[in-house]
Amino acid sequence: MDRGRLEAFSDGVFAVAITLLALDLGVTGPGGPPLVRQLAEHWPVFAAYVVSFFTIGIIWVNHHALFTAMDRIDRTQLFWNLLLLLFVVAIPFATSTLAEYLRHADRSASVAGLLYGGVMEGLSLSFVAIFVHALRANLLTAPPPPEARRGAVLRFSLGAAAYLVVMGVALVSPVWTLVLAGAVAAYYVFQRTPDPGTPDRG
Amino acid sequence: MDRGRLEAFSDGVFAVAITLLALDLGVTGPGGPPLVRQLAEHWPVFAAYVVSFFTIGIIWVNHHALFTAMDRIDRTQLFWNLLLLLFVVAIPFATSTLAEYLRHADRSASVAGLLYGGVMEGLSLSFVAIFVHALRANLLTAPPPPEARRGAVLRFSLGAAAYLVVMGVALVSPVWTLVLAGAVAAYYVFQRTPDPGTPDRG
Amino acid sequence: MDRGRLEAFSDGVFAVAITLLALDLGVTGPGGPPLVRQLAEHWPVFAAYVVSFFTIGIIWVNHHALFTAMDRIDRTQLFWNLLLLLFVVAIPFATSTLAEYLRHADRSASVAGLLYGGVMEGLSLSFVAIFVHALRANLLTAPPPPEARRGAVLRFSLGAAAYLVVMGVALVSPVWTLVLAGAVAAYYVFQRTPDPGTPDRG
Amino acid sequence: MDRGRLEAFSDGVFAVAITLLALDLGVTGPGGPPLVRQLAEHWPVFAAYVVSFFTIGIIWVNHHALFTAMDRIDRTQLFWNLLLLLFVVAIPFATSTLAEYLRHADRSASVAGLLYGGVMEGLSLSFVAIFVHALRANLLTAPPPPEARRGAVLRFSLGAAAYLVVMGVALVSPVWTLVLAGAVAAYYVFQRTPDPGTPDRG
Repeated sequence: MDRGRLEAFSDGVFAVAITLLALDLGVTGPGGPPLVRQLAEHWPVFAAYVVSFFTIGIIWVNHHALFTAMDRIDRTQLFWNLLLLLFVVAIPFATSTLAEYLRHADRSASVAGLLYGGVMEGLSLSFVAIFVHALRANLLTAPPPPEARRGAVLRFSLGAAAYLVVMGVALVSPVWTLVLAGAVAAYYVFQRTPDPGTPDRG
Repeated sequence: MDRGRLEAFSDGVFAVAITLLALDLGVTGPGGPPLVRQLAEHWPVFAAYVVSFFTIGIIWVNHHALFTAMDRIDRTQLFWNLLLLLFVVAIPFATSTLAEYLRHADRSASVAGLLYGGVMEGLSLSFVAIFVHALRANLLTAPPPPEARRGAVLRFSLGAAAYLVVMGVALVSPVWTLVLAGAVAAYYVFQRTPDPGTPDRG
Repeated sequence: MDRGRLEAFSDGVFAVAITLLALDLGVTGPGGPPLVRQLAEHWPVFAAYVVSFFTIGIIWVNHHALFTAMDRIDRTQLFWNLLLLLFVVAIPFATSTLAEYLRHADRSASVAGLLYGGVMEGLSLSFVAIFVHALRANLLTAPPPPEARRGAVLRFSLGAAAYLVVMGVALVSPVWTLVLAGAVAAYYVFQRTPDPGTPDRG
Repeated sequence: MDRGRLEAFSDGVFAVAITLLALDLGVTGPGGPPLVRQLAEHWPVFAAYVVSFFTIGIIWVNHHALFTAMDRIDRTQLFWNLLLLLFVVAIPFATSTLAEYLRHADRSASVAGLLYGGVMEGLSLSFVAIFVHALRANLLTAPPPPEARRGAVLRFSLGAAAYLVVMGVALVSPVWTLVLAGAVAAYYVFQRTPDPGTPDRG
């Protein structure tokens, strides 16, 4: 199995998912309130668009770093990758649901936050699964030494831990779910380039 | 005709089709019942999403295995491939129709199940057609010996047979249509890597 | 300007456009009439889907043949290609409009047929423009001898002529517009592989 | 970080965004006024479609020219590119909003024009940021000599200046916003091929 076509397919899915985010942008049109007010009232849609856009962008960057570090790919890895993509494709749905409920401080808004955090959690765990499988099936070009593996997996699981916090926050404040998810994305944007041998996003 | 651009185009179609599946995910929004109940009531949408997502994923994996085994492609093969993609592109529609009717145990639900199974059947038969044409037009890099061809075609037609069963079950229970389609997908996920010379999904 | 990225971008547009055709497939859902009747009444949608799918598929095949025959691409060619893609992207809209009006034998149905034929005509003329520019700017790897150019351009304009007929028929019978467009697509499917030096679809 | 996958991902986003523009094309269907009148009344949708299509097309052409001129890409550049894509993906939304409000000469129409011009301005500034970062981080294969850098950046900022004018015009006449945006696109279509070392669109 060559890596090229897995990457091409994954890139296609990332590209479509990131663009479908924009389907949620939209206003009622000339019949409704003044456009300025419509845009102002839709702030959760725009905020969620930016956060999810950069989140998918970062996933793409890290997906690239992770698969570049493997010199071959087996059938199991194909399916872990499919699982990852299953969550990527669900991001526009989770984003739009969060944006719709964000201004309502009720229980449904918390559920929307949990859904959003849950999709990100699924994503992070799929990343961990891909990394762990790469270690176990010996797919990495330059595998870390045995004593460093535990640490590499832990660093890789950082994102999964962060999104657990995001989910916890959803129970209290859905708005802060989005702020925190944005902070996680920003952290991964500004953090130093990861060493290809031990990419560090889970 | 080089294989690269056929694969790039097909990968693009697979990627868009798999992502469009998510357009069906969605809830009524703040005006409706509590979000938890909306999500719970939409279980057929989520179940159908997961089954169709992995089905398209497996088709992509096997499409890749099948075309890698050919060293050239002729114009006829291009059109068999287009026929295959015609059914791939119809999957989101068949999925959304099945999900909508799934909880209704009436005749329309059976029709929805038949439609879903029928699209999968069309897909499987297109795969068989591509394989048979590859054999006849001598497109395979390492064609199976003449005495093994019949067996290879039969193994390749296994999926087509499975989806006939899926269609039969639709007449009795639409829910079991989805369960069975999920089982077919799971079978192809966990089955051993196929020999590239005789990929084994029809 | 390398050909690879033009092809990759064009393939992406073809892949998305061909998949968006399926957005038009769809039924009212459980609230409406029995699903069988809904599907039967939507026959124009399914017929138009199949015709447009193969039309885009053939355009893709011929686009590939045409650009493979060029060894370099200039900025002007990039924009002729953009014009071609402008019409490709409009096909789902023209298809859905034709399908909606097809069963109504009024003047709007003729307008829908004209629109459909007109988009195809625009496509064909863009193809002719790409071929003529390739001749004039000397972009072909193996340009036809001067005395054969006129014939090559004429053969290339065949499709443009066919779609003029399709447009004329729209004035009389919108249903026959679709039948004829299907026949044009079928002709190009079954016709012999074109000589790369003189691809023969306009 | 290899340039190939950045380009593949970006091309995917461009291709999806350019095709999603067509989702806005559409008519009310047989229930409404005659199709000819519907099409005539939707002229802003078609005009905006053509302008935005060529604008995205030109951005793609210039994106290609700009990245071809770099021999390596760093993590910062990946994120400037993501910012550029964030605006590309927002174009269908801005286009559809402008088209909806275009015939209304009220304040909301001006806001729609500002939104459209603002997205283009964001795009242009991202392009400038990519170019400036390429200069500073020494990513260009053939960087311009120090004394020519200021001029290169200025020429690159021309588009950003043009879209400021487009935004200003929106306050007076939303229709002229579209005309001017079309003129900017036409200018970049017909202008001489830019020197790869100093691509000239901002």
